[in-house]
Amino acid sequence: MKAGQLRWGILGPANIARRNWLAIRLSGNGTLVAVASRHLARAQAFIAECQADAPFDPAPRALGSYAELLASADVDAVYIPLPTGVRKEWVLRAAAAGKHIVCEKPCAPNAADLREMLVACAHHRVQFMDGVMFRHGARLARMRTALDDTGSVGQLRRVTSSFTFAGSPEFFRGNIRTQAALEPLGCLGDLGWYCVQFALWAAGWRLPREVTGRLLATHGGVPAELSGELVFDDQLSAGFDCSFLRANQQWAYLAGTEGALRVDDFVLPFAGDKTEFELRSAEFRRCGCDFRMEPRVRRVSVDGHGHGHATAPETNLFRNFAAQVLRCSAPNESWPDIALKTQQVVDSCLTSARAGGRPVMPAG
Amino acid sequence: MKAGQLRWGILGPANIARRNWLAIRLSGNGTLVAVASRHLARAQAFIAECQADAPFDPAPRALGSYAELLASADVDAVYIPLPTGVRKEWVLRAAAAGKHIVCEKPCAPNAADLREMLVACAHHRVQFMDGVMFRHGARLARMRTALDDTGSVGQLRRVTSSFTFAGSPEFFRGNIRTQAALEPLGCLGDLGWYCVQFALWAAGWRLPREVTGRLLATHGGVPAELSGELVFDDQLSAGFDCSFLRANQQWAYLAGTEGALRVDDFVLPFAGDKTEFELRSAEFRRCGCDFRMEPRVRRVSVDGHGHGHATAPETNLFRNFAAQVLRCSAPNESWPDIALKTQQVVDSCLTSARAGGRPVMPAG
Repeated sequence: MKAGQLRWGILGPANIARRNWLAIRLSGNGTLVAVASRHLARAQAFIAECQADAPFDPAPRALGSYAELLASADVDAVYIPLPTGVRKEWVLRAAAAGKHIVCEKPCAPNAADLREMLVACAHHRVQFMDGVMFRHGARLARMRTALDDTGSVGQLRRVTSSFTFAGSPEFFRGNIRTQAALEPLGCLGDLGWYCVQFALWAAGWRLPREVTGRLLATHGGVPAELSGELVFDDQLSAGFDCSFLRANQQWAYLAGTEGALRVDDFVLPFAGDKTEFELRSAEFRRCGCDFRMEPRVRRVSVDGHGHGHATAPETNLFRNFAAQVLRCSAPNESWPDIALKTQQVVDSCLTSARAGGRPVMPAG
Repeated sequence: MKAGQLRWGILGPANIARRNWLAIRLSGNGTLVAVASRHLARAQAFIAECQADAPFDPAPRALGSYAELLASADVDAVYIPLPTGVRKEWVLRAAAAGKHIVCEKPCAPNAADLREMLVACAHHRVQFMDGVMFRHGARLARMRTALDDTGSVGQLRRVTSSFTFAGSPEFFRGNIRTQAALEPLGCLGDLGWYCVQFALWAAGWRLPREVTGRLLATHGGVPAELSGELVFDDQLSAGFDCSFLRANQQWAYLAGTEGALRVDDFVLPFAGDKTEFELRSAEFRRCGCDFRMEPRVRRVSVDGHGHGHATAPETNLFRNFAAQVLRCSAPNESWPDIALKTQQVVDSCLTSARAGGRPVMPAG
């Protein structure tokens, strides 16, 4: 291993992998050494396309099978954006090969599968992490400070979020995200995963005691629009919705006894060298027989790019992961735990939704 | 009747009645002639306090009983802000006395009671309307135009709203809104009524086919925090929450296939001579290996004050009501219908919430 550099392989040239290619390149402590596809030509095309952005970097090897990549002695860690329906096999094989794993979300079709994957990772002492970028942005840490400062939001009581995009006709015809065998969780796995994980983050990674879900639309047997409700102990609750059938929206509100925090782009920060959120409250005042509500809005800017930069969340993700692996002999246990809790709540939402909205208790 | 003027009486000097005193005064087609309380001194004190804002206006009569007001031949219409638990009796008696009625929300403890009230109003040919001000603001009409223009929001699929305030210790000790006998619907009647009615407005006054509610906190046996979900036909759904336990928030999102409409003050517009809302969308673009999300925000300003003015929603409410009564011999039937539908959905939310979240079909 080159000193201070984690050597990466990518299993599957998915679209999202192009962005993460860039993230690995910008991370400073990672080097991409191989890209594998079931078809060598696809791996080559992917590399050619990405390499066009960085013509002077040494190009990674193109490999025509995932197994070949896992057998490569010069690969320390793999990024796996394969479809959810086939991912488990490759996570198990990667773990057995001693490769550390960044796994796209949703990590698995269900929590039982994910548990099996995590047991394998623990057994082989490899690090596991899901591919949720927002956890690694500078903004999230600043938001936590605001939540903890007692005056801005006060006691947090409600998290509301929405993450949606409008799939094109082509998306609904051909994209794997609406195919039950490959992506059985549909929009809940692709979009709701973020809403659920954001709520769990806000809750300090506690599991809710009760979850309900409501299927609002399906496509090809998978959720295409869904709403969910999470009830935690300590008087915190969360509502969210996710959809393949509505225009781009990715907002969240965190509301408490003293005010609220609003973020308009909690998943994919808007372009720019800062990311932002708002602290919002309103004052109610009587003036003679009239009364008035006056807004108080404080816009908070956080240094650090939203994407495509050394300071961006996705770059931080790969940097944090590599730093952990390079630094420690024992895996960080909180990352797989976060993935599992998210999966458990996602599972519960779908179970409830399929049962017409019956409340479900996530398995602890 | 003075030509072009509806003569008003107020039954109960509630806090909200002070604002509506002002609204009647500013309406241009209404005159307040009497204020009744069970205690004459209270009616006198209320009049003295309000009259301080308008010392040159002729003062209304103070009356020491509601019955006396209903017996007054010079009163054409009454505004009834009495507690929900005792309102039915006085709506029935006002109708029997031939007085037109603006009734505070929630109109009744349940839809069966409200139906009885509305039947009485129809029988006596008096106009009935609930006291929801936002329906009468210039902004709502402008929002409807935006919803209908096909490009801004497109097909509407989701309405999300939240209306909350943080009750003081004094509120929880003494205010009627947390006393089961007087306000059995708690925050659902006081705040959720607006969220529900806003969703029904967005849905073109259709009833949802299924409603769920979740009690998140109670106080003195009444809801203190509650979330609800409404599922309509035609792929529209709505989620809302209301609370006496969180800081002031009153926002709504209307999300569709092309974009979203966001309003930060849908119930009590912020102070100023304009009211506003935003049309929001975001564009997803690929740039080499990176991709970016760029927001598109169009702020729409609508002329007309938020409150306390001749152009404000509450003034429009009293003006619209008076104009209807002065113009027509037959009551407007859509206003009672709106109140009844709101009550039916509110009822369903509470029924579901009390049954642990079981889906309920509102009675049509």
